[in-house]
Amino acid sequence: MENYRAPVEDMQFVIDELCEVGERLGGLQRFAELGVGPDLSGALLEESARLSAEVIAPLRRVGDTQPASCAERKVQISPGYAEALQQLAAGGWYGIAADPAHGGQGLPEVYGTAACEMWNSADMAFALAPILSIGAAMTIQAHGSEQQKSAYLEKMTSGEWAGSMCLTESGAGSDLGVMKTRAVPDGDHYRLFGQKIYITWGDHEAMDNIVHLVLAKLPDAPEGSRGISLFIVPKYLDDGSGGLGERNDIYPVSVEHKLGIHGSPTCVMALGDDAGAVGYLLGEPNQGLACMFTMMNEARLKMGVQGLGVSEGAYQQAVAYARERVQGGVPIIEHADVKRMLLTMRVQTEAMRALAYTEAVTMDLAHQSADPALQARVDLMIPVIKGWSTELGVEIASLGVQVHGGMGYVEETGAAQYLRDARIAPIYEGTNGIQAADLVGRKLGRDQGATMLALIEEMKATVTDCNNAELADIGTALASAVATLAATTTTLVEQLQENRHTAQAGAYDFMMQLGYVAGAWHLARSSVVASARCQQSERSIYPGKIASTRYYCEHILVRAASHAEVIFGGSAALQNYPTEWM
Amino acid sequence: MENYRAPVEDMQFVIDELCEVGERLGGLQRFAELGVGPDLSGALLEESARLSAEVIAPLRRVGDTQPASCAERKVQISPGYAEALQQLAAGGWYGIAADPAHGGQGLPEVYGTAACEMWNSADMAFALAPILSIGAAMTIQAHGSEQQKSAYLEKMTSGEWAGSMCLTESGAGSDLGVMKTRAVPDGDHYRLFGQKIYITWGDHEAMDNIVHLVLAKLPDAPEGSRGISLFIVPKYLDDGSGGLGERNDIYPVSVEHKLGIHGSPTCVMALGDDAGAVGYLLGEPNQGLACMFTMMNEARLKMGVQGLGVSEGAYQQAVAYARERVQGGVPIIEHADVKRMLLTMRVQTEAMRALAYTEAVTMDLAHQSADPALQARVDLMIPVIKGWSTELGVEIASLGVQVHGGMGYVEETGAAQYLRDARIAPIYEGTNGIQAADLVGRKLGRDQGATMLALIEEMKATVTDCNNAELADIGTALASAVATLAATTTTLVEQLQENRHTAQAGAYDFMMQLGYVAGAWHLARSSVVASARCQQSERSIYPGKIASTRYYCEHILVRAASHAEVIFGGSAALQNYPTEWM
Repeated sequence: MENYRAPVEDMQFVIDELCEVGERLGGLQRFAELGVGPDLSGALLEESARLSAEVIAPLRRVGDTQPASCAERKVQISPGYAEALQQLAAGGWYGIAADPAHGGQGLPEVYGTAACEMWNSADMAFALAPILSIGAAMTIQAHGSEQQKSAYLEKMTSGEWAGSMCLTESGAGSDLGVMKTRAVPDGDHYRLFGQKIYITWGDHEAMDNIVHLVLAKLPDAPEGSRGISLFIVPKYLDDGSGGLGERNDIYPVSVEHKLGIHGSPTCVMALGDDAGAVGYLLGEPNQGLACMFTMMNEARLKMGVQGLGVSEGAYQQAVAYARERVQGGVPIIEHADVKRMLLTMRVQTEAMRALAYTEAVTMDLAHQSADPALQARVDLMIPVIKGWSTELGVEIASLGVQVHGGMGYVEETGAAQYLRDARIAPIYEGTNGIQAADLVGRKLGRDQGATMLALIEEMKATVTDCNNAELADIGTALASAVATLAATTTTLVEQLQENRHTAQAGAYDFMMQLGYVAGAWHLARSSVVASARCQQSERSIYPGKIASTRYYCEHILVRAASHAEVIFGGSAALQNYPTEWM
Repeated sequence: MENYRAPVEDMQFVIDELCEVGERLGGLQRFAELGVGPDLSGALLEESARLSAEVIAPLRRVGDTQPASCAERKVQISPGYAEALQQLAAGGWYGIAADPAHGGQGLPEVYGTAACEMWNSADMAFALAPILSIGAAMTIQAHGSEQQKSAYLEKMTSGEWAGSMCLTESGAGSDLGVMKTRAVPDGDHYRLFGQKIYITWGDHEAMDNIVHLVLAKLPDAPEGSRGISLFIVPKYLDDGSGGLGERNDIYPVSVEHKLGIHGSPTCVMALGDDAGAVGYLLGEPNQGLACMFTMMNEARLKMGVQGLGVSEGAYQQAVAYARERVQGGVPIIEHADVKRMLLTMRVQTEAMRALAYTEAVTMDLAHQSADPALQARVDLMIPVIKGWSTELGVEIASLGVQVHGGMGYVEETGAAQYLRDARIAPIYEGTNGIQAADLVGRKLGRDQGATMLALIEEMKATVTDCNNAELADIGTALASAVATLAATTTTLVEQLQENRHTAQAGAYDFMMQLGYVAGAWHLARSSVVASARCQQSERSIYPGKIASTRYYCEHILVRAASHAEVIFGGSAALQNYPTEWM
């Protein structure tokens, strides 16, 4: 059943024709020598597609049925995963967007995003290993001393060493300020004592070493979130000459028995059961949360891409089944309701892809530019990409089960695994409730909606671009949705000033509304591009893009208005409901 | 984690105060001697609640972690299930609504519905055993000869013997007409040969015998669905004196490894590997599908009640966790977004309950009356109860996972199981796509919307009842939703005449729209009742019912309009999308 083939044509359409990476990024100093453009995109995507189809996708059912396990303070990962991770490393994929000064390829983030989508379609549990390693390396890149960078980055960028992020504790999840792990000064380093939970890929032997990034409290640290520091805690310490030395006092205690992503070891990690885990301060004391947050945008983009990737995987399996399965004398893909489900899967996946890749390009622009509007746009859209895409990931994987009928409920079919795997993404790396609160409370609140209104102006420009016979109906649907979005933005900005609780009560619905409208906008932009190409090309992707946009406007975008109604309603019933009656 | 307590107070509110079973059913001849009313309701609900909490709920995790298995043509069920099934039988629950002439208690269907909700909250996998047995007995009641009734019904009603329904074959699921199992005449009986799949509780040794109802084709039967007959195929044949004789040639081959409901053995059943399974024709030759359909309404109501039951179970666990779990110094139930999720779970569960119980009462009225409008109402609403409630069951169970954060994804917590279990209900007993097609194509089409418009008139009467200061906002919201429902009804009836494909393309959205509006209607009716009671009582259920209705109007009913938009849009984009581009 594992026939995943990366949708290279659609990916390349988004990267080269919709985002125009050659034109928009090729001229930037960082990318000037790299030949960013269609040829490079094509080569990278094809190579990543090959690796994903041949090496990673066959592991999905293996990891699910032979999960990672823990015994005697060691994690045993699923068969074949170590070799595949090494092939990923050998292909240079850990360092695709990393700094060339430390062994990276220095390519635009959007290529890493596309590769990440493929890994997640092929096997979400597997994909977490490179995602976490890359995230840890980026944090050291951003906050490490020169000595720390040279000690760790090259080995992490090459994929020789892995990375992990150790944040959560029992009792300290969304509220990290109450954590108990402590770091005691000990010469030029610290000794850490405590226990961390939900540590993704917290231990394994697929790579020679693991560079754990651990949040802990210094003695006499201020209370709460301002008293947390970040430490580098390598699994194996340096032997004094750059080689692997002593085993550090950080060990896996157990792995969780989870609904999905069985191939990803989710560890309880104990620090300091013996002499204390040796840790090196990363960044300034008590600035640990701020350090984590600098890489949060990238990490949350990748979580959104998990929703996208798992949707594509689920869609491909469902559409293949629907072409083969005959009921009533015709393949079920011809049944109106099955077609509805498949198109609902497909067009939302296209919309998520266009949104995620577009903002990955904005991220590259923001990194290379002094224009604060670019970073503000990224900051605004990241919680939407994370929250909206992971909500859709669950919906789409669930539709994939439904398309299969009874077979979808049988585990061997593999459709149910997409649902079980997808279900984690709305929870981790900041629950979707946290994303929504961040979107409304911080991103909308901090500039009274200015970044949001600038986005709306861009959406209106696309409405204007649709002003022709072919695209007029798309333009009309988008115009109406954008007008409503402008209205909810105004409503929320007012609510933030008058009663933050009211604004927060509508936050989830705003995140979803913005996601649906942004998806429509990017599909409408895609249709504008495709409409021009149609006249010069026979490729079905161009009329296909317009057909997808029409379906999206007809069946998906209509949801945005119901979310808006919740916001306009003001949530008095929610706020006034006495919790003791629940 | 298994602390399920049946919501007896809400159930009794619905049964006695909203549905007024004493007034509406107590006077009917069938129920005249039974004392239908609050005292009886209270006693029955308390006893069922006790059984569900003490006997069934503790099995939920057992069945999940120690699934049913099959070896040597026998199914071994999960530990404790057989004893619990026997307790259910001893309590008389198999026969609660069955004909007293064959050992039943002859009580109104709504009591069986409430008990069924409890079984499903406690353990969906377990609940399937009595549901299927009762369904099989009802089919024999409706179509059996007097001899068949006396041979089987008393033992099935007492729970001494179980029942099963053997319909699906590989390649013949939603399209039963192409099935291959054949029945060869052999004296006064038949010999059956074939293989059936997805047979729920197809084999076990919890009861002395299993009465399988099997669809098969007679020699020279017409093609397709008009050539299917129904047979009684007992696991053990009669020994000639009413005792258990020879083992019949129907055996389990394997049980499926499923996403959820692990405690329910889903069997592949082989008939006729040896001399042929002895079967007795039930009903007329070639009328097997029609026979099945007469009990389909009851079975589909129960499937909707599965969505309801699993929602209540998931809600109870989530709300208990949210009261205990502290983040940021307060229990998370006080966080706006967590409260939003919990209320979304709660009020939809209340709405599903009011809808399902109300139509269970209509079913009783229809059985005891010659008014065809009653049966037409039941026929109209059954696909909505099945489809809408099982879609919500998945949503609500998924929200239950989300409320738990990371813990929700860990299997031991038990929240994820509700999601895995709930996911089957939109698939079996007619997929929700089939329900939607039935609702629009048959139920709306056969009387050009007349039954639907009568329902809308009743909804409008409730709008009028809300015409007072306290309920005016509820009335306004309901009025608007009902007006839109009238408009989509008209649109679909027109589409059915002009282009059935267009109507079918909107069928799913109509099913969901009608479900949301019907839910609002029943909650509004509940609020009208509660509002009057508030003046005489301090019980929080009365203001609670109004608060739930307000939340429903604010956060849930808004979804109905987006489904309506799909119908008004006409689905041209769906229909015109070439499947080869997918």
